[in-house]
Amino acid sequence: MIVVFTGGTGGAKLVHGLAQVVAPERLTVIVNTGDDLEWWGLHVSPDVDSILYALVGLLSRDRGWGMDSDSFRCLERMQQLGQPSWFALGDLDLATHLTRTAMLRAGKSLSPATAELAAKLRIRARVLPMSDDPVTTVLDTARGTLKFQEYFVRERHQIEVHRVRFEGAHRARPAPGVIESIAAAEAVILAPSNPVTSIGPILAVPGIRDALRQIKTTIAAVSPIVGGAAVSGPAGELMKMMGWPSTIAGVAKAYEDFLDVLIADRADEPEAARLRGENLQVLCTNTIMSSPAAKRELAQFVLEACGVMSGAAPGGYAQAKV
Amino acid sequence: MIVVFTGGTGGAKLVHGLAQVVAPERLTVIVNTGDDLEWWGLHVSPDVDSILYALVGLLSRDRGWGMDSDSFRCLERMQQLGQPSWFALGDLDLATHLTRTAMLRAGKSLSPATAELAAKLRIRARVLPMSDDPVTTVLDTARGTLKFQEYFVRERHQIEVHRVRFEGAHRARPAPGVIESIAAAEAVILAPSNPVTSIGPILAVPGIRDALRQIKTTIAAVSPIVGGAAVSGPAGELMKMMGWPSTIAGVAKAYEDFLDVLIADRADEPEAARLRGENLQVLCTNTIMSSPAAKRELAQFVLEACGVMSGAAPGGYAQAKV
Repeated sequence: MIVVFTGGTGGAKLVHGLAQVVAPERLTVIVNTGDDLEWWGLHVSPDVDSILYALVGLLSRDRGWGMDSDSFRCLERMQQLGQPSWFALGDLDLATHLTRTAMLRAGKSLSPATAELAAKLRIRARVLPMSDDPVTTVLDTARGTLKFQEYFVRERHQIEVHRVRFEGAHRARPAPGVIESIAAAEAVILAPSNPVTSIGPILAVPGIRDALRQIKTTIAAVSPIVGGAAVSGPAGELMKMMGWPSTIAGVAKAYEDFLDVLIADRADEPEAARLRGENLQVLCTNTIMSSPAAKRELAQFVLEACGVMSGAAPGGYAQAKV
Repeated sequence: MIVVFTGGTGGAKLVHGLAQVVAPERLTVIVNTGDDLEWWGLHVSPDVDSILYALVGLLSRDRGWGMDSDSFRCLERMQQLGQPSWFALGDLDLATHLTRTAMLRAGKSLSPATAELAAKLRIRARVLPMSDDPVTTVLDTARGTLKFQEYFVRERHQIEVHRVRFEGAHRARPAPGVIESIAAAEAVILAPSNPVTSIGPILAVPGIRDALRQIKTTIAAVSPIVGGAAVSGPAGELMKMMGWPSTIAGVAKAYEDFLDVLIADRADEPEAARLRGENLQVLCTNTIMSSPAAKRELAQFVLEACGVMSGAAPGGYAQAKV
């Protein structure tokens, strides 16, 4: 079993690539839920949905979130009704949130609800939210305390952040299967997601970081920082705020207590040379997943770095349009 | 104040007509909520919404329910996710249900939630659900007990009905303003809605029927039966099941304890002649509201039959597209 820790956007691309070079049944994807929000009365799990959509090839490539070819008529009408509209849910996307919310209201926990949604989408990989308990990423900023989506979407992350906290994390339990899958993993991969606000919340759930420290299996991280800046989003600024360099060295720092392999972009070869040491292997490749082929190639590279055979038949395991 | 009792479709047309021939502020519309349902986890009030949409000229003329120019992309996606899809909510329409449901979940009752929605739509008429308490119209049928929408929409009312019941009605209270508006009315109009399942639930809320019996004001009903059959829907069959004729005589029977004026279609002139008596005035006109002008003309006729001056300026009070 290959275990992937991930947030949305960049991580979703790598997960999509991985599902094409190994049998999806071998993948367990542990997803950040610190960004989850109640929106229009619905429970929205943006990162979980990005992973689900990516796994069926439905994630919008233009936007990097939401569903391909979606429309926003309900959103426009919500606007006309004076409802908040800064967080956009598409008409197709709404079906996911309505379905999940109905399950949660019926008393189901987030992980079985996610499994049921995945089954409805005929996803063969295992997608696990990090926890069934609410964990909320909040940021203390120059303009007060904001929830993650308020900072990221509403304020377009253009506010200085003083501190990131994961409310509820101290009493959250890892979702059923999370610790077990880490313990049984052939490899653990940290996707190129924001180390502070995407991977950070997962690691903040008691027991998960310890599980990573304890396993002998190779743990590899793909750097979300390329050429000294985040490929997308505020990873650079937030890493600086944490006192880490906003370079691949910062990524290594974020995961220093358990990381075996750091996969960086070729653009960072000089920095990679400096970072290499007894306890850390640093490999460089093309990490910008700008095409379906690039996704697959990076996925293959990561697996090889972990010493895992993909066992993919020629043409891979694509289960949906690429 | 002119008080209208109504269900959806036909009633909505008359309400639309009335709002154009009197100042909308003079209208209080008391709406059936026995058809309300929980759908996709949302509280849907189909008749209330038909009235709201009609009052702003947004009610779909093609379908007679939902919003004009709506699309059904979320519905299609719900279908793909294996969710129930026999009750169609449009993408635009969803905004109404999301907004209302959020209000109800926040602890608001149905009547203030309705008032807030009406205000957001800039509706000047007063729209009151019959009760803030849940009343559920259920039908004992040849195929078991069905809720109204299951019978009406899912089964296309093609099942024999043995009995209609209004669950919860005995402990329901009229919504705030309902009894007061009846007591203060210049006229009460029963819209051409199904006497059994549209007006019936309203009259089943304790206190409302008594209020109609007690007032001196003219109470007029527009027959939903034309030429011995319902203009639309199962009114004929359900009236028969109640032991009433499925003619305008059945409509008179349904309301016999309080009705002053029955407005029937010209097609029913012979029956009208037989029905006329000391306690019941029966007037004939064109009751098929097949055009905006026909709606206005019927509305005007009804007001005159009640002895109410419309006071409409030439061109009426149209507040939205007709």
